[in-house]
Amino acid sequence: MRILGVDPGYAIVGFGVVDYAGANFAPIEYGAITTMAHEPFDKRLCCIDTDIREVLRRYEPDCMAIERLYFTTNQKTAIDVAQARGVLVLAAAQKGLPVYEYTPLQVKQAVVGYGKAEKRQVMEMTQRILRLEQIPKPDDAADALAIAICHGHSCRGRR
Amino acid sequence: MRILGVDPGYAIVGFGVVDYAGANFAPIEYGAITTMAHEPFDKRLCCIDTDIREVLRRYEPDCMAIERLYFTTNQKTAIDVAQARGVLVLAAAQKGLPVYEYTPLQVKQAVVGYGKAEKRQVMEMTQRILRLEQIPKPDDAADALAIAICHGHSCRGRR
Repeated sequence: MRILGVDPGYAIVGFGVVDYAGANFAPIEYGAITTMAHEPFDKRLCCIDTDIREVLRRYEPDCMAIERLYFTTNQKTAIDVAQARGVLVLAAAQKGLPVYEYTPLQVKQAVVGYGKAEKRQVMEMTQRILRLEQIPKPDDAADALAIAICHGHSCRGRR
Repeated sequence: MRILGVDPGYAIVGFGVVDYAGANFAPIEYGAITTMAHEPFDKRLCCIDTDIREVLRRYEPDCMAIERLYFTTNQKTAIDVAQARGVLVLAAAQKGLPVYEYTPLQVKQAVVGYGKAEKRQVMEMTQRILRLEQIPKPDDAADALAIAICHGHSCRGRR
């Protein structure tokens, strides 16, 4: 099963594609979609749409796993991240992909085995699970890979 | 100038198309896009995308005016409304339409002339300005028409 993990955002969208088979994960690609702060917000949504569709076309994942949003102190940011998330989910759904969502707590529990793990621990475990030489950069891509791993574990748990 | 006003939502999206010329407004069409509560959220976003693109194709507006989101007590709802709003804004932007946003306060000031106007007053003024026989139904469509009127007034103000 090929999983596309997504860390939603409007300035940076992290993505990570992993293959999951026989309880093993293999990294296929990871990176970030970025948009320019000086662009109008609607144009930034267009960039995100174009780029995520290119990721979907190129790597043909079987499903999307994306972080569930929760509220931070900055509500304006949260609203704009949510708008970008809508565009990302739409692109996957229109390709016929099932979309799964996970909270940061679930991701930490799945990757580190401990819901209160530090961000750094999640990144190091992600690196180890995927047998990468370094911690993936940028952080958003590492987060996206962690979400993909979380979905793999979750599927195994359901079987 | 033909204005598409939109009241964003994920269960109900109100829309209203008005022509604005020489300080006069003429209603062209209004209504609501609705999605089913039992559908998965990603499928609901697909419905909204399909239907708003049909509205854009059929009425060929020159611009979209859409309510700016602010936070209510229900943050889960606010996040989902924001995701739907992202899909609506994307559809307009991909058609090349400029997207304008207004707060509820701006809409009340533009339509009634008083930022603390009651919802009922806004609806009655919307009906009067558009010379409609009744207050538009559902409320979401009336709100969308009010947003379109707000944008018309705002354009006149800028000239």
